[in-house]
Amino acid sequence: MTAQPRTPLDALDAPPRMRPSNYPAPFAAKVAGRVKRPLGDAFGLTKFGVNLTTLPPGGQSALLHRHSRQEEFVYVLEGAPTLRTDAGEFPLGPGMCVGFPANGVAHHLINRTEAEVRYLEIGDRDPEDRGDYPEDDLVAVFSAEGWRFTRKDGTPW
Amino acid sequence: MTAQPRTPLDALDAPPRMRPSNYPAPFAAKVAGRVKRPLGDAFGLTKFGVNLTTLPPGGQSALLHRHSRQEEFVYVLEGAPTLRTDAGEFPLGPGMCVGFPANGVAHHLINRTEAEVRYLEIGDRDPEDRGDYPEDDLVAVFSAEGWRFTRKDGTPW
Repeated sequence: MTAQPRTPLDALDAPPRMRPSNYPAPFAAKVAGRVKRPLGDAFGLTKFGVNLTTLPPGGQSALLHRHSRQEEFVYVLEGAPTLRTDAGEFPLGPGMCVGFPANGVAHHLINRTEAEVRYLEIGDRDPEDRGDYPEDDLVAVFSAEGWRFTRKDGTPW
Repeated sequence: MTAQPRTPLDALDAPPRMRPSNYPAPFAAKVAGRVKRPLGDAFGLTKFGVNLTTLPPGGQSALLHRHSRQEEFVYVLEGAPTLRTDAGEFPLGPGMCVGFPANGVAHHLINRTEAEVRYLEIGDRDPEDRGDYPEDDLVAVFSAEGWRFTRKDGTPW
């Protein structure tokens, strides 16, 4: 039924996602240089995603956001990102982890160091998920076609 | 509503699961020394589990098994476990990963080295999941009370 590989993979050999970001152009620049390697997809997994994500110096994981339905989990492999939330900032390092229940604190990771940051990010896939961006005029709704973005008043970007 | 911590955690500081294994006694000895730290649970996540699991020399992750519904993903952090499947064996090392779609190859990890092995294991939580054990007289059915084990003829252990 499936042509997905079943043999183990060096995670850094997984092909990066080619489309750099789904964000509308005014926001996409903020995550420039971010590289996501979808590891779960490489094995045909569909219920949750696991990405190996690399942030360059000055890079960030996403806009400050929270999900309405999706749960997220991050495990830091290399480097020292800052977790920035609407409840404060937290320094992270290798071996540290943090989970984000749905509708919890808004959050993103920022790399304020001169070295690359690398982490695993895990999230389930809920067809009715929605992304809220407290600092930006942006709303994201997840559908079969992927994320669809509008302004907060519902008008398209 | 919740008393779950939201601040990041050093994964090795997460408390280990106290109950060492759900397996019936004849099988539990095979996973002796295995330590699982539930990381996702520590942040109140419910849709998927993320464990930091440590295998001592000679230890193994589980009996050879496959899930009927649950997807699994493993990312090796330290050490050199062997992935043993019913389709062959594969050496693993730090930075390597493998995913297991439901009803795929049966699998487990064995630590044949003199050093500890440490990995992240991720799985979704499907209330109708079932575990099949090709090498053992065992069937596992997941319920609200956790895993329930029987022999293959349905009689209890």
